[in-house]
Amino acid sequence: MRFFSDNAASVHPKVLEALAAANGPDTAYDGDALSGRLNAAFSDLFETEVEALWVATGTAANSLALAAMCQPHQGVICHREAHIEQDEAGAPGFFTGGAKLMLLDGEGAKLSPESVEACCRAIRDDVHQVQPAAVSITNASEYGLVYRPDEVAGLAEVCKARGLSLHMDGARFANAVATLGCSPAELTWKAGVDAFSFGFVKNGGMSAEALIFFDREMAGDTHYRRKRAGHLQSKGRFLAAQILAMLEDDLWLENAGVANAGAQIIAEAAGDRLLYPVEANEIFIRLSADEAEKLRGAGFDFYDWGEGQARLVTSWNQSAENIRPLAEAIASL
Amino acid sequence: MRFFSDNAASVHPKVLEALAAANGPDTAYDGDALSGRLNAAFSDLFETEVEALWVATGTAANSLALAAMCQPHQGVICHREAHIEQDEAGAPGFFTGGAKLMLLDGEGAKLSPESVEACCRAIRDDVHQVQPAAVSITNASEYGLVYRPDEVAGLAEVCKARGLSLHMDGARFANAVATLGCSPAELTWKAGVDAFSFGFVKNGGMSAEALIFFDREMAGDTHYRRKRAGHLQSKGRFLAAQILAMLEDDLWLENAGVANAGAQIIAEAAGDRLLYPVEANEIFIRLSADEAEKLRGAGFDFYDWGEGQARLVTSWNQSAENIRPLAEAIASL
Amino acid sequence: MRFFSDNAASVHPKVLEALAAANGPDTAYDGDALSGRLNAAFSDLFETEVEALWVATGTAANSLALAAMCQPHQGVICHREAHIEQDEAGAPGFFTGGAKLMLLDGEGAKLSPESVEACCRAIRDDVHQVQPAAVSITNASEYGLVYRPDEVAGLAEVCKARGLSLHMDGARFANAVATLGCSPAELTWKAGVDAFSFGFVKNGGMSAEALIFFDREMAGDTHYRRKRAGHLQSKGRFLAAQILAMLEDDLWLENAGVANAGAQIIAEAAGDRLLYPVEANEIFIRLSADEAEKLRGAGFDFYDWGEGQARLVTSWNQSAENIRPLAEAIASL
Amino acid sequence: MRFFSDNAASVHPKVLEALAAANGPDTAYDGDALSGRLNAAFSDLFETEVEALWVATGTAANSLALAAMCQPHQGVICHREAHIEQDEAGAPGFFTGGAKLMLLDGEGAKLSPESVEACCRAIRDDVHQVQPAAVSITNASEYGLVYRPDEVAGLAEVCKARGLSLHMDGARFANAVATLGCSPAELTWKAGVDAFSFGFVKNGGMSAEALIFFDREMAGDTHYRRKRAGHLQSKGRFLAAQILAMLEDDLWLENAGVANAGAQIIAEAAGDRLLYPVEANEIFIRLSADEAEKLRGAGFDFYDWGEGQARLVTSWNQSAENIRPLAEAIASL
Repeated sequence: MRFFSDNAASVHPKVLEALAAANGPDTAYDGDALSGRLNAAFSDLFETEVEALWVATGTAANSLALAAMCQPHQGVICHREAHIEQDEAGAPGFFTGGAKLMLLDGEGAKLSPESVEACCRAIRDDVHQVQPAAVSITNASEYGLVYRPDEVAGLAEVCKARGLSLHMDGARFANAVATLGCSPAELTWKAGVDAFSFGFVKNGGMSAEALIFFDREMAGDTHYRRKRAGHLQSKGRFLAAQILAMLEDDLWLENAGVANAGAQIIAEAAGDRLLYPVEANEIFIRLSADEAEKLRGAGFDFYDWGEGQARLVTSWNQSAENIRPLAEAIASL
Repeated sequence: MRFFSDNAASVHPKVLEALAAANGPDTAYDGDALSGRLNAAFSDLFETEVEALWVATGTAANSLALAAMCQPHQGVICHREAHIEQDEAGAPGFFTGGAKLMLLDGEGAKLSPESVEACCRAIRDDVHQVQPAAVSITNASEYGLVYRPDEVAGLAEVCKARGLSLHMDGARFANAVATLGCSPAELTWKAGVDAFSFGFVKNGGMSAEALIFFDREMAGDTHYRRKRAGHLQSKGRFLAAQILAMLEDDLWLENAGVANAGAQIIAEAAGDRLLYPVEANEIFIRLSADEAEKLRGAGFDFYDWGEGQARLVTSWNQSAENIRPLAEAIASL
Repeated sequence: MRFFSDNAASVHPKVLEALAAANGPDTAYDGDALSGRLNAAFSDLFETEVEALWVATGTAANSLALAAMCQPHQGVICHREAHIEQDEAGAPGFFTGGAKLMLLDGEGAKLSPESVEACCRAIRDDVHQVQPAAVSITNASEYGLVYRPDEVAGLAEVCKARGLSLHMDGARFANAVATLGCSPAELTWKAGVDAFSFGFVKNGGMSAEALIFFDREMAGDTHYRRKRAGHLQSKGRFLAAQILAMLEDDLWLENAGVANAGAQIIAEAAGDRLLYPVEANEIFIRLSADEAEKLRGAGFDFYDWGEGQARLVTSWNQSAENIRPLAEAIASL
Repeated sequence: MRFFSDNAASVHPKVLEALAAANGPDTAYDGDALSGRLNAAFSDLFETEVEALWVATGTAANSLALAAMCQPHQGVICHREAHIEQDEAGAPGFFTGGAKLMLLDGEGAKLSPESVEACCRAIRDDVHQVQPAAVSITNASEYGLVYRPDEVAGLAEVCKARGLSLHMDGARFANAVATLGCSPAELTWKAGVDAFSFGFVKNGGMSAEALIFFDREMAGDTHYRRKRAGHLQSKGRFLAAQILAMLEDDLWLENAGVANAGAQIIAEAAGDRLLYPVEANEIFIRLSADEAEKLRGAGFDFYDWGEGQARLVTSWNQSAENIRPLAEAIASL
């Protein structure tokens, strides 16, 4: 069984059904009826007026958000292990026209207000040094840790004081909300987030993520940038359909709950092998090469994560019954 | 009935079926089995070894091709009414890092070897002037005209002499092949095309186009550029599945044949209203405001195309029976 | 004698003296006393508060101005024969991050309000088409014609109505002012210009042009962009010194007057050979290959300008006595 | 007396004389006789055929070199405190079209073969991670340390094995050569450097640096990029004149020797205050706030360098007599 990444999981049947249901002719690009419902649907979910755009990938969502916040000669503060730095092939540099990612340390790939403030303070206020314009955080983080609403608010406070915009990469936002039990609003705009990449693909979608602007003025040029980046699909209704299916009856939250529950089963079995608390659907454990081989021999696939460590990711489509054999295998190592 | 654009047509049932069939877990990005079949499938179709990448839009395919051909300080020769110039929001400038489109005139949005040669000759060979690196043509053209293999070869000859790469935007390549009855190979690499955007979305697909490199060395960095542009979808197998479904039993050619046949029905009815010969699935006609109103009143939707002109586009899902009422309405104006 | 370009003329002795006089130690970059005097010097000259930055070339001045006016996904309207389009190697595309130059026709390389308005009207207000953000004109134009203050104002009116910024490339602004006898203010901000490249190098300077922002808010990020483009010289006082020397006692205007007077001498001799009225220091004439050869044989150097045409440019350091032999040679052809 | 930076020192009289001597008319841009001598002059100096271009700043030289080595989607390995990272306002990101600087640690701002190799090894060879294309080192380093020829060769060996180009920022190359007593060739191409920014401005020049390509094929497009960046000055002969004056009778080496000698005087006085060995013309010392105030009170200007530290830089125009008062003041603290 695969625990490589939720990235590769199957698509939820309701999403496939939504594609079939959307298959009449309608206006091209985002002029169709389904795309036209996105702003309202997300405004409902977030309890405030937002502007929402579909895009096919989280990389595009993140980079379009950053391009709206940051001029080519400016910078974006993020964690050294942030997805935008490590795994997006330099996309932020492309979409922003060359802006610089300013890399901070922090346990579990999380930033703290102190680290952001220290970074800003260390930059001379002159034209020789790139000045930051935004901060980007990932929630849940790349190590499966969540930022609580008050933690986000703490970061937002520094941002406000320093004139920085705040972006949240929510590739696994659903997992964070499922863990925290807070409202989407509390974890985003109420805590000070300006723009937000809402991930669905890892959570049962096929090819649609949402880019949400709480600061709607910031959204304006993004429509042009999306087209210019080749991300305005002509049959956009099929992206909107996926997202609306995920929002209906909170399927997004239900799916994340399943993945999180699976992660907890593994976490309990892993015990003090755990490198980080398991707060979403990613589990990082100590695992020797021999142990890894044993697990793989038993049919479990996952990534090595540096020397003597491994990463396991659970997905929306892995039930407790699916997961238990792995948990038992780990427990009995 | 809608004749705005084939862009907005419905998706072919076999494409939807292919999506459902692809819905097991597999490796993410393009590491899956379906994506792994693309090179072979297109090499078969084109009777030569090619490298093929899926992308979600024609804009992305075109711009990635141009970025592989052209440095930021160079230029791409194209028609003044080329889609890359008129309708892609500056995407070529974005993907190439600022390269310049060099705009030529030509009947029906077609370039001629003479016009390309004259353009090159007029550029001083010094560092003050942007030097061209590539030529991009659209087949079928933006006015629904086809380039025949010998016409492409004529352009390729100038390109070769001038050291330029040759790109073909094949958003409606299927329609061109259906009209010409030639092989895909004859209309592309055998005539000198280096890279090629093979459109499927207008022709029954949902969200997958293919970028084909006949010059496979040129393809290398494109894998990086695709990711950097946010176009490497994590569930890429669903793009590959669409394309493979379109290739199977030449569905792409069959669909284009239907659209072309519909266009011929309208063309015959339009008679001397025609502004261009109808060689694919686009019809441009003289139509007064009154006449346009009459047609719209009868339930036919289409775009005005400048003063007293209209554009009608037929789609793969419009049968002769669907089309005839429009033809009759035009004939009886 | 050389009539290729004022570009290549010698440097005025007062400029060289100013360099020697500036050669004490002072703060680096633009923190020195001379650079600190620029804003005041230009504010005096223009009778309004301006922000002024030195740069080494007109290409840099023009492109920095455009980058301040235009996002990467937008466009700049200019003449098809504008220097920024024809002779700057794509610099506007580089500095703006890929913005598009939108090329208009017009006699003598001049734009008219009507042509700008028509260009704007022809662009669909949707995300598929690049939207213009600025207009750039050259005064005197690339064909040696001047825009009068009321002509600039007419263009500025369209710009204002359309939300466009107005840039003036003043590589030969001095020549235009010398011809028109108006004040620098009348020809720029009073007529609606937002930013302005004030050329000195063609007019007796060595390596310093001034970029003037009448809209001072627009200037802010330009300080960062100048550094980022490698144009913030560490011994900037030597650029400031050149400019201040050119401003002192209106040396800039005196020099331009000399060059213009020389051009008039040639213009009179050329009679109906003239292709354009001579309003600055450039003369375009009909000249057969034989005639050109004869002039060159007599020691006069100049550029051919297309078939049977030639361009002659006079410089600040060519007195009437220097010029007369050429005038006579032309008259006696 | 100023010890802020050699950046701000005066210009050597021979450089000013060369400007005056160059002040006849000549062909514009780099078509003049002086510019035409650069390749030969540097080929002599480096004992191999090189291609040399003048530019006005070290930032431009460095970034043009990197743009010749690195595609927009690639990266450049450098030290965390490299000038290109810390003090060039993001210029490498601008000139390369968004490439990423990959930052390494290392004593005294120096890279080691081991650190470069480790950096490369840590990057997964897939499209999600930016792949390095070049390494950039500064000699003398930002902390005034020199790389010896064998140290450069050690880095070049890793570069070769990894397919990376090697750039040397030689803003203070003259100081390094003066210290090492080696030939310019030994410290550059013989050790494996591909392109090289040869600094003159800090060393007695006014506004001209040289960009040297040992790999001459790499130089080709740089001529276009220089123009596109607004760095091709129309009176380029005045840049060439400066450089030729600096090369004549090894003035560049003589000047550096003076600055280095001054630094040694301070170094001896500073004793165990020194934070780094003094191998060029920069001195970093421990200095309390009180002590700094005392020195400033005595008329010595310099930069604080973090808490309780200071940076002093000596210049070509500071003789031993000029320096001794500072040395004595430090010794008597």
